[in-house]
Amino acid sequence: MIQFYAPDITTTLTLPESDSQHCIRVLRMQCGDVIGVVDGKGHRFSCRIVEPHAKHTVVEIIDTLEISPVWSNDITIAIAPTKNIDRMEWCVEKLVEIGVNRIVPLRCQHSERKEIKFERLEKIAVAAMKQSLKATLPRIDEMMPISLFLEECATLKNVQKFVGYCDSTMPRRLLAKEYSAGSDVVVLIGPEGDFSHEEIKAAINAGFIAITLGDNRLRTETAAIVACDTCHIINQANS
Amino acid sequence: MIQFYAPDITTTLTLPESDSQHCIRVLRMQCGDVIGVVDGKGHRFSCRIVEPHAKHTVVEIIDTLEISPVWSNDITIAIAPTKNIDRMEWCVEKLVEIGVNRIVPLRCQHSERKEIKFERLEKIAVAAMKQSLKATLPRIDEMMPISLFLEECATLKNVQKFVGYCDSTMPRRLLAKEYSAGSDVVVLIGPEGDFSHEEIKAAINAGFIAITLGDNRLRTETAAIVACDTCHIINQANS
Repeated sequence: MIQFYAPDITTTLTLPESDSQHCIRVLRMQCGDVIGVVDGKGHRFSCRIVEPHAKHTVVEIIDTLEISPVWSNDITIAIAPTKNIDRMEWCVEKLVEIGVNRIVPLRCQHSERKEIKFERLEKIAVAAMKQSLKATLPRIDEMMPISLFLEECATLKNVQKFVGYCDSTMPRRLLAKEYSAGSDVVVLIGPEGDFSHEEIKAAINAGFIAITLGDNRLRTETAAIVACDTCHIINQANS
Repeated sequence: MIQFYAPDITTTLTLPESDSQHCIRVLRMQCGDVIGVVDGKGHRFSCRIVEPHAKHTVVEIIDTLEISPVWSNDITIAIAPTKNIDRMEWCVEKLVEIGVNRIVPLRCQHSERKEIKFERLEKIAVAAMKQSLKATLPRIDEMMPISLFLEECATLKNVQKFVGYCDSTMPRRLLAKEYSAGSDVVVLIGPEGDFSHEEIKAAINAGFIAITLGDNRLRTETAAIVACDTCHIINQANS
């Protein structure tokens, strides 16, 4: 099953250029063919091709399905993007596959990467959403300083807030034990050089709990995936 | 901290060519410098450089540490390598980081990739072991037909055996619920086209339990990482 992505399908009844091209040029779909289209907002549409066109294929909607995520809680992963952009892109793909609601790229004191192409990450998220047959596109923020995100989180209610920290001289709890099944959660994952002491202090002041993902040393992108997966596994184990 | 890899260090007291080059040419280490060396068999040595050489650096061992894995059970992931070799290489790197004892590349009926370069996978596993500060190199098998691996597994005692299966028309259990903390485990992960019905039947006859990793559709390499991670997280949650 192939899913196409058209965020504004209900108003435009048209596939965007990239999806039109894939549909008509690559897959050679024709007038009358029925395709699956998601809007990234939780809907999957059965659409019949009315005007095949390599740039703006027009369709009619013949059926609409509400597709909610297969997990019920809200999972936010805030991560300092890796120096090697391939690792960050792989991370976004896997987070979307495994299931995440929001990804926040953080700019930290020890970040080796201070900028990131938002459009590129969103493109990868869209591809992963289509491939993993989801209908909801996770929210991806523009890169922001950790201080700004901590401000936003300070007022959060009924959300578990964790910050991954590598410094074993500091008391840390095990995420797999601290996370309560079903609860909304925010996890901060630091850069290759880890969070600075000031950043950890600020996070704890904002109500975050310092956690470890186990005694394994994980790369930044692996830590983000393991953190996200931990919440899903604990939810499944308690389902 | 940088780890060098020399599987036969205790007998040769020499770093292999690649590690000698990295040590002398790249890091410009000199006579008398002390380096960390692992043998992939659970030992980390402190070694003093005696004869710096870009191809065969001679060292003396001044200290030996036994480093056992941070998890106590035995985790084997048998996976049909992906068509795109990059995805399989990512998978091996992440499995080693997260913690695996053995990786078995499987040749299945629906495999799009029938061959794999064993040396390449081992090279990636070595790099991941060094980077994640482990001292034990997981065993990586040559690619084998699934029938052969099932034969080997049929006689296994006190090991949980699971086979990931995508076909939702078949009764499957949730790995996060079925895996018993601390037990040795083998998980089979199929190719992009999934296992064939005959392969699933054969696996079940060999004592495997059909499992799902949740309602998310995961790529082959993601499924392998999630399966391995599930065992670690269930172990941590029950530690």
